[in-house]
Amino acid sequence: MHILITGAAGMIGRKLTARLVKDGKLNGAAIGKFTLIDVVPPSPPADFGGEVSASASDLSAPGVAPQAIAGRPEVIFHLAGVVSGEAETDFEKGYRVNLDGTRALLEAVRTAGGGYRPKVVFTSSIAVYGAPFPYAIPDDFHLTPLTSYGTQKAMSELLLADYNRRGFLDGVGIRLPTICVRPGKPNKAASGFFSGIIREPLAGQDAQLPVADTVRHTHASPRAAVGFLVHAASLTRDQLGPRINLAMPGVCCTVAEQIEALARIAGPKVAARIKRVPDELVMRIVAGWSERIEAKRAAALGFKAETSFDDIIRAHIEDELGGKVAG
Amino acid sequence: MHILITGAAGMIGRKLTARLVKDGKLNGAAIGKFTLIDVVPPSPPADFGGEVSASASDLSAPGVAPQAIAGRPEVIFHLAGVVSGEAETDFEKGYRVNLDGTRALLEAVRTAGGGYRPKVVFTSSIAVYGAPFPYAIPDDFHLTPLTSYGTQKAMSELLLADYNRRGFLDGVGIRLPTICVRPGKPNKAASGFFSGIIREPLAGQDAQLPVADTVRHTHASPRAAVGFLVHAASLTRDQLGPRINLAMPGVCCTVAEQIEALARIAGPKVAARIKRVPDELVMRIVAGWSERIEAKRAAALGFKAETSFDDIIRAHIEDELGGKVAG
Repeated sequence: MHILITGAAGMIGRKLTARLVKDGKLNGAAIGKFTLIDVVPPSPPADFGGEVSASASDLSAPGVAPQAIAGRPEVIFHLAGVVSGEAETDFEKGYRVNLDGTRALLEAVRTAGGGYRPKVVFTSSIAVYGAPFPYAIPDDFHLTPLTSYGTQKAMSELLLADYNRRGFLDGVGIRLPTICVRPGKPNKAASGFFSGIIREPLAGQDAQLPVADTVRHTHASPRAAVGFLVHAASLTRDQLGPRINLAMPGVCCTVAEQIEALARIAGPKVAARIKRVPDELVMRIVAGWSERIEAKRAAALGFKAETSFDDIIRAHIEDELGGKVAG
Repeated sequence: MHILITGAAGMIGRKLTARLVKDGKLNGAAIGKFTLIDVVPPSPPADFGGEVSASASDLSAPGVAPQAIAGRPEVIFHLAGVVSGEAETDFEKGYRVNLDGTRALLEAVRTAGGGYRPKVVFTSSIAVYGAPFPYAIPDDFHLTPLTSYGTQKAMSELLLADYNRRGFLDGVGIRLPTICVRPGKPNKAASGFFSGIIREPLAGQDAQLPVADTVRHTHASPRAAVGFLVHAASLTRDQLGPRINLAMPGVCCTVAEQIEALARIAGPKVAARIKRVPDELVMRIVAGWSERIEAKRAAALGFKAETSFDDIIRAHIEDELGGKVAG
């Protein structure tokens, strides 16, 4: 089994690679080779006995996509992309990387010849949805993104579905909810506080909460996101049918419930490190985000997220903090 | 007022041009110039005293789109496109014309500079929807096209909405239902019989009906479609909000009701010219099409279709047959 991961140097890309190395196999077949690409050079995984090709490359540049699939990987995890904020500030780069890069990859697969038909797992986002929302977003809710990033993801989903329908590849797109708790340093994403109010207090630092406790959102851990990707790769055409782009499940809770979970797991002293610093801009942005995602099809197809925010915190403590919490 | 029409040589393009020439104005402003483009040379309209630039050009070719908008038309009707059947048989041409051509036009507008911000009216299609369907398709139903044509239209809608949101243009996309009664010769489109069973009998000829009388579908006349386009051009950003792509209304009826209307208007002898010649392939294709479209937002925004299939037949007799029917 040869696996290509685009965006392999990103947080999810690295965790996916590590999970696959640990599993040693995918869909029952032993993994013999990884091709890892990203715009920055991906680190080859530790403890992998097979072949690894890791290179810095931009899929949207001429000739790169055909080169990326030259070894005919059976499974492609297409995670590469410019994030939401950058796609909004750099309009041309967002379309070039997120739309043209994806199209170049799909075109390379289509024109590869020799009956090549890989499994392509594409990471989309709940940014394909745009307010106003119903109480909960059903699987058949329309795509009216309110960002260029969401537009590029929605267009890529449609393209993937058409290439899948035409039989050029076996595609599946998964719309990730907000990933929480993101490891690493705070970033400037408007959603950053959802992770920050857990990550920083657990590391003994104060964190700022810019919105009201009543804000409700849907979250999945990085571990769950990697699980979605691996599970998506196992689904057959028959299981998926023509609607291959799926909203993923997650834990729907309020900020207050996040904080209660933190206090339950790490104690009130840790939870007290969250400082309320209202930020009008963040409040306004977050007000346009979806709260509840039904994700009924994903559940029926066997995708599994955490079932409580406590579990999301525990996953972070296990995966990032070696099981330890700064008291 | 300078108006650009792409796909101006097509049936709707010609009727739209004629309607605008007859009106003499659009949104209250006198029309001084038409730029008409198509892959075949559009005929300049008769009885128009203003300036006309008519040329054969392919929007997806380099440099063509900037040239098409060089005169800074205030309103652009973007009708150009490869039809459903051709987009399915020629995959590359469909994406090049329907997606890349549209994107080239929008990019030309975005990069024109000088505060240029035209109204862009885009003809989409109910082909953006894909079975299985609910009893009636609501305005917030997701887009899961089952053709490359429908995929290209859905992707173009998303692109238009993002360019609109970013303020590069004032966009509106209208999803046309099946246009009936199409004038001219029978074509090979699977939907051709919906028009053929009215057009041919009214012209004194036999027509073949390949499906059961119980087949239900939604129709609008060419006259109504032109009315949608003109009305769409009048809508403001405030009226439209962020969801600028709209399903259009139509007359929802069964084939039996179409035939009854024909008998009512032209007599049973004319209706008897419809011969039942079942065609398994057409039946299967039509079974995957939508039946009812709610189009509530379009109705609220003032779009008007015919209210009965009788009116659709009368529009055809008035507009195409000079009011006369072969007895």
